[in-house]
Amino acid sequence: MGSEIVIALDAMGGDKAPGMVVRGASIARVRHPHLRFRLFGDERRLKPLVERFRRLAAACTIEHTEEVVEATDKPAFALRQRKGSSMSLAVRAVHEGRAAGVVSAGNTGALMAIAKVVLKTLPGISRPAMASVFPTLRGESVLLDLGANIDCGADNLFQFAVMGEVYARSVLLIEKPTVALLNVGEEELKGNEVIRTAAAKVRESGLPIDFKGFVEGDDIAAGTVDVVVADGFVGNVALKTAEGTARLYTEFLRAAFRRSVFSKLGFFLARPALHAFRDRVDPRRYNGAMLLGLNGIVVKSHGGTDHRGFATAIGMAADMITQGFNARIIDELQRLHAVPVPEPETIAV
Amino acid sequence: MGSEIVIALDAMGGDKAPGMVVRGASIARVRHPHLRFRLFGDERRLKPLVERFRRLAAACTIEHTEEVVEATDKPAFALRQRKGSSMSLAVRAVHEGRAAGVVSAGNTGALMAIAKVVLKTLPGISRPAMASVFPTLRGESVLLDLGANIDCGADNLFQFAVMGEVYARSVLLIEKPTVALLNVGEEELKGNEVIRTAAAKVRESGLPIDFKGFVEGDDIAAGTVDVVVADGFVGNVALKTAEGTARLYTEFLRAAFRRSVFSKLGFFLARPALHAFRDRVDPRRYNGAMLLGLNGIVVKSHGGTDHRGFATAIGMAADMITQGFNARIIDELQRLHAVPVPEPETIAV
Repeated sequence: MGSEIVIALDAMGGDKAPGMVVRGASIARVRHPHLRFRLFGDERRLKPLVERFRRLAAACTIEHTEEVVEATDKPAFALRQRKGSSMSLAVRAVHEGRAAGVVSAGNTGALMAIAKVVLKTLPGISRPAMASVFPTLRGESVLLDLGANIDCGADNLFQFAVMGEVYARSVLLIEKPTVALLNVGEEELKGNEVIRTAAAKVRESGLPIDFKGFVEGDDIAAGTVDVVVADGFVGNVALKTAEGTARLYTEFLRAAFRRSVFSKLGFFLARPALHAFRDRVDPRRYNGAMLLGLNGIVVKSHGGTDHRGFATAIGMAADMITQGFNARIIDELQRLHAVPVPEPETIAV
Repeated sequence: MGSEIVIALDAMGGDKAPGMVVRGASIARVRHPHLRFRLFGDERRLKPLVERFRRLAAACTIEHTEEVVEATDKPAFALRQRKGSSMSLAVRAVHEGRAAGVVSAGNTGALMAIAKVVLKTLPGISRPAMASVFPTLRGESVLLDLGANIDCGADNLFQFAVMGEVYARSVLLIEKPTVALLNVGEEELKGNEVIRTAAAKVRESGLPIDFKGFVEGDDIAAGTVDVVVADGFVGNVALKTAEGTARLYTEFLRAAFRRSVFSKLGFFLARPALHAFRDRVDPRRYNGAMLLGLNGIVVKSHGGTDHRGFATAIGMAADMITQGFNARIIDELQRLHAVPVPEPETIAV
């Protein structure tokens, strides 16, 4: 620790940017005092914002950009036509070694496309995956992929399992994380060919992964395992279905408390407890999806988040950099290739 | 209405069978007085149970069976080796015209396999789909397929859309139900080939379906559309993820109310309102998955449900029978083939 860590921030991405980016950076620095920032964006707007936070001002440099990736830009368009944008240049700073990671609350598809092309994947990883941490009945779990890869082969799922396990172990500091593939049943014969082949690959890899086979959708929130692996289509549907269900519950609960004078009074009395409940499921506490498997740490913040949520996303990037996440992935995959291929057995007669 | 409807009940399926089946039937008959039942199961156990409910006793016959499909039976095994089971014989009663529908809380895979083979699919339907009704911010929606078909082609998804629309219109009595395919984004180019082709098929079918294109996971609970269509893998993950998230919320909320004397008192005061909240999301209110597209009405009750949940499942079957659901599906698909193929346009010079 102690040594400085530089993170590039896309100061123009997100609904409440650049204000929430600057305030978020200021909060993150209180929690992680060794952080320094490169802010990419409109200098005229950023300078007065940064100057409000004396300590932050001393720990960041502004790199002026004119262009912005719009929320409506298609990924391919952003990649080719927005080369001078705050997002592109923030990612490029990681490639150039001027930052160890990048955080953006901008257009998700554009960030994935730019990060993939500019940073490229780690050796041994064919495609990056998007991952997030979730509250569960047992604590926290990791879910990946959340939508970076719509069609996945068994090799992709296997690599996601390796990355998710390393994340849970090295960043969430779970000693021996359990890993499973998201399926429609726990039995070995359930699901499709891709998922069954991926399970075999994990089992036969020789890696010391505590692999539990298959879990179902309700196991995500139950926290049955620490790492849940799915292709990007299924993972994205699961993530958004969970978000939607959470909103439905919150709305129904709010309506219940508005029902009568007694329920309003009940709400008032239970307020501290209900606030604790709200904090426990606060999306800002879990804001930030990590783009795993690239040469550089990339975190996507929710576009609608506020400064507190953005600070969480910066913290995620800081943790991954501090723990040397990428070096551990490379180690793990090298270990994989170092596993001696077993000789075919000689048939004893 | 008025005329009698006969429903076959697998009296031995479910954790609390046969007691909850008999009590459930008795409750269902209060709500739907024109129902009659054929109870399939162990006569020695069923007879004393039925005799406790005088009106029910007058409206049902017991058909004695010795065998039971176990929860651990594989579908193929149940199909071939459990031909004398309460489940098999209850389904067979529908095939023989001695019942208009069947309800079972037994082994899901076995029920699907037996129902498919014994009843066969409706003309124009290549595979049956499992569907359920969910509470949403706007009311109720239908989600299908929930796991009957792991790998689906565009034709399957198209047929699911037709069946879901007819269900919402004829059973939920929604005048002009909106329909969408579950995807990872709303844009037309999102998702995989199968989903894009299915969308084109719905649009080009000529059927008067109010098709809204694609929705995402969070649209299920939001109630953005009345009918959400997915393949069985994705639909099953969405269903179970929603169930898991609901349980997580309930558990966190319970913990919050136990936190202090004030929160306990608050809970006490808000209790009627919180009970209304609980009723709104009570899984028993939504118990029952319909197996759509077969020659006969088949409803699968949750295995762990109680008599109230089982009564809901019977009610679902009764509604589908009363509304002539299957005849409407056949009509709709015949209409499809009756749509004249448009002549290629003559190019005006």
